[in-house]
Amino acid sequence: MENGLTVLKVGGSLLEDDTHIEQLARFVSKIKGHKIVIHGGGSKTTEVSKMMGITPKMIDGRRVTDADTLDAATMVYAGLYNKKVVSIFQKYDCLSLGMSGADLNSIKSRKRPVDSIDYGYVGDIEDINILAIRMILKLGVVPIFCAITHDNNGQLLNTNADTIATLIATRMTEKYDHVRLIYFMDKAGVMMDPSDESTLMDSIDFQTYKQMKMESIITLGMIPKLDNAFYALINGVEEVWVTGLPYVMDPEHIQGTRIYE
Amino acid sequence: MENGLTVLKVGGSLLEDDTHIEQLARFVSKIKGHKIVIHGGGSKTTEVSKMMGITPKMIDGRRVTDADTLDAATMVYAGLYNKKVVSIFQKYDCLSLGMSGADLNSIKSRKRPVDSIDYGYVGDIEDINILAIRMILKLGVVPIFCAITHDNNGQLLNTNADTIATLIATRMTEKYDHVRLIYFMDKAGVMMDPSDESTLMDSIDFQTYKQMKMESIITLGMIPKLDNAFYALINGVEEVWVTGLPYVMDPEHIQGTRIYE
Repeated sequence: MENGLTVLKVGGSLLEDDTHIEQLARFVSKIKGHKIVIHGGGSKTTEVSKMMGITPKMIDGRRVTDADTLDAATMVYAGLYNKKVVSIFQKYDCLSLGMSGADLNSIKSRKRPVDSIDYGYVGDIEDINILAIRMILKLGVVPIFCAITHDNNGQLLNTNADTIATLIATRMTEKYDHVRLIYFMDKAGVMMDPSDESTLMDSIDFQTYKQMKMESIITLGMIPKLDNAFYALINGVEEVWVTGLPYVMDPEHIQGTRIYE
Repeated sequence: MENGLTVLKVGGSLLEDDTHIEQLARFVSKIKGHKIVIHGGGSKTTEVSKMMGITPKMIDGRRVTDADTLDAATMVYAGLYNKKVVSIFQKYDCLSLGMSGADLNSIKSRKRPVDSIDYGYVGDIEDINILAIRMILKLGVVPIFCAITHDNNGQLLNTNADTIATLIATRMTEKYDHVRLIYFMDKAGVMMDPSDESTLMDSIDFQTYKQMKMESIITLGMIPKLDNAFYALINGVEEVWVTGLPYVMDPEHIQGTRIYE
């Protein structure tokens, strides 16, 4: 067993501003032990798609990924954002390597089966290649994953970045002693009143979460994120945080909302 | 000194058709020893730029890379094409890793100084990080480079793919015994009459090249490519070929035009 791995998920909206990427780079360079970054690219993909004349299709608030949308997502996630993050990381002497799930065959997924809804080229993760990821970590390199995976048969697939981060962190507990997972959002953490930062909760447990969901205090996008967070915790990840990038400076003293069972 | 390295440059136009990428993957998987692929993305970038409302600017037949064009190039080269190639390579059990020059800080370049012409975000290569590239080769992985580099200070730069391939092959001669460099184009090689494939030359030496340039038989895009080819040969690359992807099947018996001093 190796010691110390921090897995950081960064929301796509945080990447729209280079100063946030610089802040992330400084933060990551201060973290001791191994580290892995996973990023999304959400709103920029919609913007690029629109510029390219692709009409975004949504079903139940989820993006439907047709072939053109997959191309746009691959361009924004794996191209524009991934390389921007990597380049800025090198500036802070944080040796990094941008990756998709196709690279080193690191994340294999399966095109989501068509049930009542056809989500298109969306991949559900089947396997995390921990051997490949450890190979990179052992070189002292920080892998920076975008939210594109593949089916190991030549087809790229759009995959949820929170899920990638959760499953990587969870699988890595097999090989690393202390795995820490931090989800960075554009908010400071879980709040009793999302419009009032003074209601930030410094921790949340599963009972409280269920209660807050029932009372509709926690809604929409926060639900799948917290479901992921609890999944990671239940499956061996030692420390799980939901926080905002601009609020966190010292990797040894993370602020925001810590998740407890 | 290690034995056997093949460096393959693939023109962007060849990547527009997935069957060409599959052919490349089969070819590369048959090559013995280490291998590195470098690809461009030319016409697709123009297409994407136009869809995004960016007007391509050309000076003396060279693309001027403003900030928006750099974004489009990064999206197409590092995103769309690079990940498509990587994913198809895995299908043929060719363990590959897509990279830009920012990844692992592998290719450092300098924004071309503004003289009479401002080419914008175009990078002239300053350093090839052979340590980083060998680190990947030693893992038994095929690095697949796109034509995006960086200045190691957070700025991505558009860089000529032929030049990247030439300089990687040349620098690698310091560490590998037999370095082979193959430029794949959409033509079968150098031809006396570009419209007539029966005039394909199976070899060309520097004297003949100079003569053919003087007689305007070799023109335009072929000149910088052959200049690169002769540069590589003069600087220690043992075997240099200019050929067409659809014409080459067996890596032990390459067809096309071989370059001699």
